[in-house]
This record gives sequence, C-alpha cells and structure tokens, in this order.
Amino acid sequence: MADDDYGIRPGEQAVELPGQTDAALYFIGRIRTPWKKREDCPKNARESEAVCTIEVDARWAPALKDVETCTHLVVLYWMHQARRDLALQVPRHYGEQRGTFALRSPARPNPIAMSVVRLVKVEGTKLVVVGLDCLDNTPLLDIKPYFASTDSVPDAVAGWHAAKKT
Amino acid sequence: MADDDYGIRPGEQAVELPGQTDAALYFIGRIRTPWKKREDCPKNARESEAVCTIEVDARWAPALKDVETCTHLVVLYWMHQARRDLALQVPRHYGEQRGTFALRSPARPNPIAMSVVRLVKVEGTKLVVVGLDCLDNTPLLDIKPYFASTDSVPDAVAGWHAAKKT
Repeated sequence: MADDDYGIRPGEQAVELPGQTDAALYFIGRIRTPWKKREDCPKNARESEAVCTIEVDARWAPALKDVETCTHLVVLYWMHQARRDLALQVPRHYGEQRGTFALRSPARPNPIAMSVVRLVKVEGTKLVVVGLDCLDNTPLLDIKPYFASTDSVPDAVAGWHAAKKT
Repeated sequence: MADDDYGIRPGEQAVELPGQTDAALYFIGRIRTPWKKREDCPKNARESEAVCTIEVDARWAPALKDVETCTHLVVLYWMHQARRDLALQVPRHYGEQRGTFALRSPARPNPIAMSVVRLVKVEGTKLVVVGLDCLDNTPLLDIKPYFASTDSVPDAVAGWHAAKKT
C-alpha cells in the first residue's frame, strides 16, 4: 500500500489479520458532523465545541426512553475508513512509534471509537450532542448512559502522553 | 422464548432485527475472571476489587507497546450471551422499564461492553487489571488508553439512576 493517508509510515508495523471474523455488527444510525474529510476533523473532541447530531434508526426509537435524563453519554461508532492491521503506529502529530492499544487512533483490529459526549437535547430519534470528532455519516454502533461512579477517573494518567506535554 | 434468564420479562419490548449485518469483528483475546455463571458476576464493576486478566492474542503483542505507561484503560468486549433485539428492558435489580440506550445491560443491538479498568501490571501479553465484571472467557475486542481530559466527567448525572438512589 502506498505511503498515503491510509498507508504505512516508517516505523509502523502491520500484522496478518485472521482468516475469518468472529462476530457481526448492525449499524443502528448515523452521526452527522460538520467534517466531510479526515483532515478537517478535530484531533481531539475537546478541541471542538461543535454541535453534532446522532440520528438513530426508527427501529430503535423505543430504546431511547429515559436517555434524555442523562447529562452525558458514551457513544460507540465504527471508523469504517480505518485499516485494521496496524500493531505499531507513528501518529503524524506525535511522530513517535506507539502500540495500537496505547493509542486512540481509528486504525485498530476492531475500529470501534468511544467518545464521551454532553447531551444537549433529544428531538425524537435525534440526539444533539457536543464532544464528537468523527467524519460526517459515521455509522453508529451503541449509546450508553455515562456513569461518573464507574466511568470517571479524574486522576488517570497515560504516561507516554503526559510526558509528551511537559 | 421462555421467560427465563435470557427471555423477555413483562414490560420489555423486542424489535425485529435487520435482515443483515453491516460490519464484522475479530476477537483479539479473552478476559479471564473469577465468574463462571451470569448470576455470579458483580452487578457493577466498582462493587468488586477482583483482579482479572486480559489475555491478548500473540498476533497483537506489538500493539501493547507503551500500554504499561497508562494507569487506566478502556476495555471493549463482546457480551456473546446477550440477546440483541430488546428496545425496552426491565432490569431485575431496578424493576422499572427503561430504554436499552439508557441502560448498561449487555442486551443491546451490538452487545459491546465498555469498562474503565485500573492497570495493575503487564506481563507479556497479559494485562492484570481491576474493574471488570464479566464472565470468564469473554471475548476481547479492544484496549484503549484512558484520557482523563476527554473521558472523565466527574459531575455527569444519569438522572433516572440518581433518582433511584435517593
């Protein structure tokens, strides 16, 4: 593969993917964002106060009951343009080699992204939220209530990342 | 389906699942826990200080580089025993009807669980962690670094849940 936006950079390592998959997903909606191209997306959701819309398929409308009582949600979505075979990556904005599981890069064996979003309002099957950084039309996989008791760890440290910032 | 542990309870509502799936997953390892049966699992990972082990397949060993610098991780795994068609549920321990997307129940269209775990140590391709509540041998989907800057929201409220506790 060419060393383009979806290719391998020096220092990166791909592995051979298994010959078969093990489970299957349903896309349950779409995420509408202002970003049509990868280079337009914010690098970090906290960089952006952009308002995005999660459009849930009508089939799952009843599943949204009580979601409006939540201030924050966990959103899982499918990074459908990402390659899945990278074990070592050199993210452009860090320039150092890291393991895939130490990164939030979309390139991973199962390109499921997880974002914590602030819920602005619910309008029928549309959720208006702040805190996403994905491409427009990204497939939606799941919505969960965010529980501060289990999901919030204010003093957590990702050592390699903290070191980069100082 | 019978009204058994995996059946439908009064007040629950199933929808017809789509005729086809949209994407496929690789299981990339297994989670070893002390719990062999569903009724043995803690209801909430914070109820348990049990030490669990995430066994990553050898294929993905290089992808663990730098993971040891993280104090906390996001773990995604596949709740392979859960039914996928429930839109409204009546969790046994709450006894009230809620939408699937307002619950952390394993039963959901894509039964992907998300847990925030504390990393105790890395031993080769095994991660020793605290904070899981799943069955032994649960298939692993992904490991991500936990970033307090984007993932921690200490004052988040799940309204229906907070109201239950008061």
